[in-house]
Amino acid sequence: MSDSLGKVFTITGFGESHGKLIGILIGGCPAGLAISESYIQKELDRRKPNDNATSTPRREDDKVEILSGILNGYTTGAPICLAINNKDTRSVDYDSLHLIPRPGHADYTAYIKYGGFGDYRGGGRFSGRITAGFVAAGAVARLLLETIGIDIFAHTAEIGGIAAKSQTLDTIKQNRNDNSLYCADSIAAAKMMTALEQASASGDSLGGVIEGIAIGIPAGLGEPVFDNLDGDMAKALFAIPAVKGVEFGAGFNAARVKGSQNNDPLEIQDGRVISKTNNAGGILGGISNGMPLIARIAVKPTPSIAKKQHSVNLKEMTETEIEIKGRHDVCVVPRAVPVVEAMMSITLCDFALRAGIIARVIK
Amino acid sequence: MSDSLGKVFTITGFGESHGKLIGILIGGCPAGLAISESYIQKELDRRKPNDNATSTPRREDDKVEILSGILNGYTTGAPICLAINNKDTRSVDYDSLHLIPRPGHADYTAYIKYGGFGDYRGGGRFSGRITAGFVAAGAVARLLLETIGIDIFAHTAEIGGIAAKSQTLDTIKQNRNDNSLYCADSIAAAKMMTALEQASASGDSLGGVIEGIAIGIPAGLGEPVFDNLDGDMAKALFAIPAVKGVEFGAGFNAARVKGSQNNDPLEIQDGRVISKTNNAGGILGGISNGMPLIARIAVKPTPSIAKKQHSVNLKEMTETEIEIKGRHDVCVVPRAVPVVEAMMSITLCDFALRAGIIARVIK
Amino acid sequence: MSDSLGKVFTITGFGESHGKLIGILIGGCPAGLAISESYIQKELDRRKPNDNATSTPRREDDKVEILSGILNGYTTGAPICLAINNKDTRSVDYDSLHLIPRPGHADYTAYIKYGGFGDYRGGGRFSGRITAGFVAAGAVARLLLETIGIDIFAHTAEIGGIAAKSQTLDTIKQNRNDNSLYCADSIAAAKMMTALEQASASGDSLGGVIEGIAIGIPAGLGEPVFDNLDGDMAKALFAIPAVKGVEFGAGFNAARVKGSQNNDPLEIQDGRVISKTNNAGGILGGISNGMPLIARIAVKPTPSIAKKQHSVNLKEMTETEIEIKGRHDVCVVPRAVPVVEAMMSITLCDFALRAGIIARVIK
Amino acid sequence: MSDSLGKVFTITGFGESHGKLIGILIGGCPAGLAISESYIQKELDRRKPNDNATSTPRREDDKVEILSGILNGYTTGAPICLAINNKDTRSVDYDSLHLIPRPGHADYTAYIKYGGFGDYRGGGRFSGRITAGFVAAGAVARLLLETIGIDIFAHTAEIGGIAAKSQTLDTIKQNRNDNSLYCADSIAAAKMMTALEQASASGDSLGGVIEGIAIGIPAGLGEPVFDNLDGDMAKALFAIPAVKGVEFGAGFNAARVKGSQNNDPLEIQDGRVISKTNNAGGILGGISNGMPLIARIAVKPTPSIAKKQHSVNLKEMTETEIEIKGRHDVCVVPRAVPVVEAMMSITLCDFALRAGIIARVIK
Repeated sequence: MSDSLGKVFTITGFGESHGKLIGILIGGCPAGLAISESYIQKELDRRKPNDNATSTPRREDDKVEILSGILNGYTTGAPICLAINNKDTRSVDYDSLHLIPRPGHADYTAYIKYGGFGDYRGGGRFSGRITAGFVAAGAVARLLLETIGIDIFAHTAEIGGIAAKSQTLDTIKQNRNDNSLYCADSIAAAKMMTALEQASASGDSLGGVIEGIAIGIPAGLGEPVFDNLDGDMAKALFAIPAVKGVEFGAGFNAARVKGSQNNDPLEIQDGRVISKTNNAGGILGGISNGMPLIARIAVKPTPSIAKKQHSVNLKEMTETEIEIKGRHDVCVVPRAVPVVEAMMSITLCDFALRAGIIARVIK
Repeated sequence: MSDSLGKVFTITGFGESHGKLIGILIGGCPAGLAISESYIQKELDRRKPNDNATSTPRREDDKVEILSGILNGYTTGAPICLAINNKDTRSVDYDSLHLIPRPGHADYTAYIKYGGFGDYRGGGRFSGRITAGFVAAGAVARLLLETIGIDIFAHTAEIGGIAAKSQTLDTIKQNRNDNSLYCADSIAAAKMMTALEQASASGDSLGGVIEGIAIGIPAGLGEPVFDNLDGDMAKALFAIPAVKGVEFGAGFNAARVKGSQNNDPLEIQDGRVISKTNNAGGILGGISNGMPLIARIAVKPTPSIAKKQHSVNLKEMTETEIEIKGRHDVCVVPRAVPVVEAMMSITLCDFALRAGIIARVIK
Repeated sequence: MSDSLGKVFTITGFGESHGKLIGILIGGCPAGLAISESYIQKELDRRKPNDNATSTPRREDDKVEILSGILNGYTTGAPICLAINNKDTRSVDYDSLHLIPRPGHADYTAYIKYGGFGDYRGGGRFSGRITAGFVAAGAVARLLLETIGIDIFAHTAEIGGIAAKSQTLDTIKQNRNDNSLYCADSIAAAKMMTALEQASASGDSLGGVIEGIAIGIPAGLGEPVFDNLDGDMAKALFAIPAVKGVEFGAGFNAARVKGSQNNDPLEIQDGRVISKTNNAGGILGGISNGMPLIARIAVKPTPSIAKKQHSVNLKEMTETEIEIKGRHDVCVVPRAVPVVEAMMSITLCDFALRAGIIARVIK
Repeated sequence: MSDSLGKVFTITGFGESHGKLIGILIGGCPAGLAISESYIQKELDRRKPNDNATSTPRREDDKVEILSGILNGYTTGAPICLAINNKDTRSVDYDSLHLIPRPGHADYTAYIKYGGFGDYRGGGRFSGRITAGFVAAGAVARLLLETIGIDIFAHTAEIGGIAAKSQTLDTIKQNRNDNSLYCADSIAAAKMMTALEQASASGDSLGGVIEGIAIGIPAGLGEPVFDNLDGDMAKALFAIPAVKGVEFGAGFNAARVKGSQNNDPLEIQDGRVISKTNNAGGILGGISNGMPLIARIAVKPTPSIAKKQHSVNLKEMTETEIEIKGRHDVCVVPRAVPVVEAMMSITLCDFALRAGIIARVIK
C-alpha cells in the first residue's frame, strides 16, 4: 500500500494542504503507552515556522487531535488516528496555477498521474504540510523508543553551502536548540541567517543538509537482504518532500578513501564491542552495530521562489512565465529537522518491534 | 517479508556465498515473455571478475539455471526461479574468522542477530555474491522494460577519488563498455586502473561512485507519499552490499545552490513537456517526469584488505589482530555497475507494472 | 499491517464503538471517480437498525463525512478518509463489564492481548459498529466495479434454521429488498420474523446464513497460489464480527457428492465459455471463471443476550454470573447483508485493479 | 506478493507439477533451530499416495533437498529453500488437453489469465502437487510451534457423505493414524474405503471433510480487525486446491442455534480461564482464547474422473467431449490431511512470531 510505511509499527497518511485536515494513522503501537495530546503538540510546535522573515507567513495552529486508539491517557492497541485541522488556507492563491506547473514542484507529475483530477491547492497531497502528520506519528515512536533507551536528534549541518563545524554528538545535542535554525554551531548559524535574508531579499531560496543521529540502538536491528536498516530508513527519509540524497556514516566520502581508512577497527569497551571510528554510521550489512546511527540528508532549495520562472500551460501546450505568489519558507531545512527525527524514529521503532525488543504491552 | 523486494514485480533472494547456490525467485512477471538461459547468462557475465590483477581470483562460472516459470522459452505467469550454483568455494579460508569479525563487514552484526548460528562462510548471506541473483532477476526486468521503451545503463563515475569527466548520456552509453571498469572516460579509466594497482600492491582497497541512468520512462511512475520512485529505488540500491549513499539528480549539490538555479524550467519539445535542465534527475514529488532518471551511488572501499587490522574475539571478548586471507576484489565498483542496472530495472519494472503500462500477457 | 486489507485497493480501519468516530481510509482508488457523501450515505442507511422490535434501540445517524481525497465531487487519487461520528454512546452500560468477559464476545481475548488496556466500551474495536466503515468503503468499491459491469448483491438465506427457498439470481435481486430482513422469499421472511420475536421475548438471539452474489465478473481475476480470489474473499468476510464459516458454490455440499455431479460441464453460449451448472461458485483454481460468484457466510447468533450467563471475574479469578444490559440486535444477519456486499465489493475491486481492468483515471 | 503467505514467518512457492521441481522458500525462521532433511522427509511421506487402488499410480519419491538456510544442522536465520524434484512426469498425457479444459479444474481460468502461456502439464502451477511444498514448510513451522507447546493434528471427518463419529480430541489424536485414510473411526473408515472402491470402479470420485485441530495455543494470538486468526487461516486453507469451504468451531451449525446455546460459558480451571463448551472453536474476535482451535475444511471430489465429460475446444470455440487419462486419486481427502496440518502450522507459526512468543534465536 503506497500510503503506508512500516511493517509492524506502521504509519498511513491522508489529507491535503488545503483540505479539511492532515491525518496520520498509526498501526502496531503496543497497548499501555501513556500519551497525551499536549505531548504530541510539543513535538509539532518544533516544526512550526519561526517568526523571522525567512519563514512562510502562513500561520497554522497545527493543533493535534487524537481521534482513536487512546483511552484514559493510554494506548489501547488499536490504531491511533491523529488529525491536524487546516485553518489558514487561501486556496485562491493556487487556482490560477492549476494548469501552469511550478518548476521544481510535483505539479506536472501529479497532473499526468491523476489526469488533472489531483488536488492542486497548495501542492495538495505533495505539500510539505503532510510532514506535520509525520511529526505527530514520530512523537509516538519516540516514546516507544525511550522505553528501550534509544534517543534521536537531528540538526542543521549546512544551509546554502555554509556548513556547521564538526562537533561531538553531545555538543550537538546540547547546542542545536540554541537558535531557530536548529544549528549546533552558533557562528555558522548567524552566517546561515544572513544568507537566508539575502536569498529572501532577492526572491530566491536555499537548501541544505540535515544530520540525523540516533544513539542507544542495540546491535542487531535490521533485516537482510532487502529490509536493511539503511534501505528502509532511506526510503522513509525520501518521503520528505525536497530530499534529494541520503547517506550514512562517511557516505559519499567513503567512496574517496582507502579501505584501511574507512574500516572501523573493533575494540572492547566496558565489556561491549565498539568501533574506534564510526565511518559505518552505525550500520553494517544493513544491521545496527550498536554505534550511533548517523544519517545525512540533502534538502533542495524551496522550489517556490518569487522570481519569475519559465513554465508551460498544460492545456494549451504553450510555453509561458510563472510568478508564484503563495506563502513559502525561504529554506525548509530548519522545519525539516524535526521531520527527519520523526522518520528516523518511525523506522527504528518498526525495526525494534520487528525484533521483539519493545514490549507488546507497555507497563 | 524481509527477503523480498517489490509489490507487483517482486524478487525474493536465497542462498549463501559458500552454500549450494545463489537463488532468486521472481514473482509477478507477465506471461508470454520470451526468455532464455543464454540471455540471462550474458547479463551475469558482465558481473564476473575481470582477469586483471585487481579482481578476486575466485573463479565462478556463475552459470544460471532456470528452475521454474518458463515453458518452451516463454514465461508462464508462474514464479520464475533462477539458480546459480556455487562451485569454487574454499570455506576453510573462513573457519578461523568465525569469532573474529572482519572490520567493515557484517560479521559482528550478523553474529549478534543470529546468536552465532549465521552462515559465516565468505560472509554467508551478506556476501556480495548474492548480487549475482539480483543481476539475473534484473535481466528479466530489463526485457519487460524494453517492451515499453525504457533503457537502463550505469557506469563508473568515480574510483578512489578519480572522477570521470562529465559527458552526454549518449556518449556515456556508447563508451562505458570500452574498458573493464565500465568507465566512459578512458583517460580517467587509465588513472583509476593505476590507483587500483597501487592499492592492491599496498594491501589496500578503493571505493567509488556509480551513476545509473534510465531513459524512456514515461511521466507518472511512482506512488506518493511513501512508495516514491526515489524512495523505493534508494531502498533497492542500499540492498547492494557496500553502498553508503544514494542521491538523485543534483543530489547533495542541490543543497548548495539557490532555488532559481536548481529548479528546472519547463518547455515544450515536439509536443511533450520537458525540462531545460535535469537537476531533479527525472523525479519530482516521487514521480517520474519523463526526463532521464539519474541516480548516483556511493560504494565504500572493499572492507576485505590484506593489511593487518584491529578486531576482537567474540568468544573471549578480547582485542586481537586479524589478517584476511580469502580472495577479494580491490574495488567492487566495476562489478557493481551491472548490479546497479539490475536494481534500477527491478524497481522501474515494479512501478511500471503497478501503473498498468506493461501488459499482463506479452504478445 | 493488520489494520488493512487489500493490495492495490486497500482499506484501513480505525475508531471504536464508543470513541469519537468510526473511520475508514481507502487507498488506491483511481482519480476521477464522481462520488458524493449522499451516495455513500444511502449505502450506510441500508445497514441501519430497523424500527422493529428485534433491532438494537441504539440509534445512530451514521452520518458519513468525507475528510480527504475528494475535490469538487471527484476522487483525486489521494487516500479517501471517511468518518462516521459516534453520538448515541452510553459507555456507562459497559463499565461494570470490564473485568467480566461476556461469553461469545472478544472481551476475554482482547483483555489478554492488550493487558487490560483495550477499549472495552461496547466491544471497542471489536464491535459490529466498525462494519459501518466497511460499508462506506464498499460504496466506493461498488462504484468502481460498476465501471466494468460488475454487480454485487447479498440476501438473507437463513435465520434461526429457517431457510429461504431456492430462487434464480434475478428473482433474488428483485425481491430481497421487499422486507426489512433482506430475504428474497417473503414467506420464509415472515417465519423468520416470528422466530426473531420469540427469541427476543425469551431473552435470546438467533444467527443465520447470508448469500453473497457477484455477477459480471470477467474470467481471470485472482492470483495463484496464495492470493486466491476465494482465499482473499474469505479473509475479508471473516473480518465481519460473528462470521464462523465461509463457503463458495456448492461449498460443504460439494464434499458429499461425486465428481461427476460436482464438475460443471463447459459449454459455449453467445461465443463465450460458460458452465452448465455452477457448483464452483464462479471460482476455479482461485481464479474467476466468468460465472456468478456465490459465497455463503455463516453468522452466529448475537452473543449479547438478556439471559443470565456464566462467566468469570478476571481480576479476582473467580466464577460469576453476568447479565448484559446494553442495546443489541436479536440477530445481526439482516444488518450484515450490506456488510457482506461491501467486503465482496472491496475484494473484487482490489483484484480488478491488480489485473489492470479498472482504469487508473476514470473518465 | 501473490506467491507468498504470511508476514513474519513466510512461505513462497514455486515450481510446477511437470517441471523440474516443486520448491518452497521459508522466510523469517529463527536461527538455531535443529532441523534435518530426514525429519522433513517423514512429514512429506505422510502425504504420499497409498498403495491401495484408490490412489494415483503416479509414484514420486518426493525426496526433499535443503538448498539454503541451514548450516551444520541448524537454521542460520537466512531463507530456507526446500526442493522436491519431479521424476515420474508423463507430460504427454496432457498435451492433447491443452485446449480442452477439464471440468472442475483450473485449466480454463488459467488459460484466460495467462493468455495460453500457462504451464498446462498436469495442472502446472495449479496441481495438487504444489502441496508437497506446503507440507515441507509446515514441517519447519511444526518444529517452531513445538518450542512453545503447540500441537497440530488433522483427521478425515467425512468422505463421500460418510462421517466419522464424534470423539474426544485425545482419541482422535491417538486413532487417526490407524488406517491409510487418517480417519480416527475405524468403522467409518472401512465404509469410506468401500465407497472409494465403488467410486473408482465407476470412473468417479469423492470428496469429504477434514478437521484440523491445534492444542496448546496461548490466548492472545491473532490481530484485529483484518489479520484475524480465523481469516488468515481460512486464506491459507483455501490455497489448498479443491477446498470449497472453511468453518471454525460450530461453524455453519452456529447459524442454526440460539445465542444461549452457542455462547461458551467461561470457567476457571487450574487458575486458567477456560470455556465449558468450545463452539467458538478457540477463536473469539479473531484472537485465540486458549481453547483448542477447531477448523473444518470441505474438499470437493477430485475433478479428474474417468467418465466422459462435456467441455469445449478453446481454439475452435466448439463444444466437445473429454476423457481424462492421466493418473489421479479417487479422493484427495486423506492426502490433504497432512496439508491441512501444514497450513494450520504455518499460520499459527506466523502469528506466534508476530506476537513475539517464539524466540528469535532458538537455543
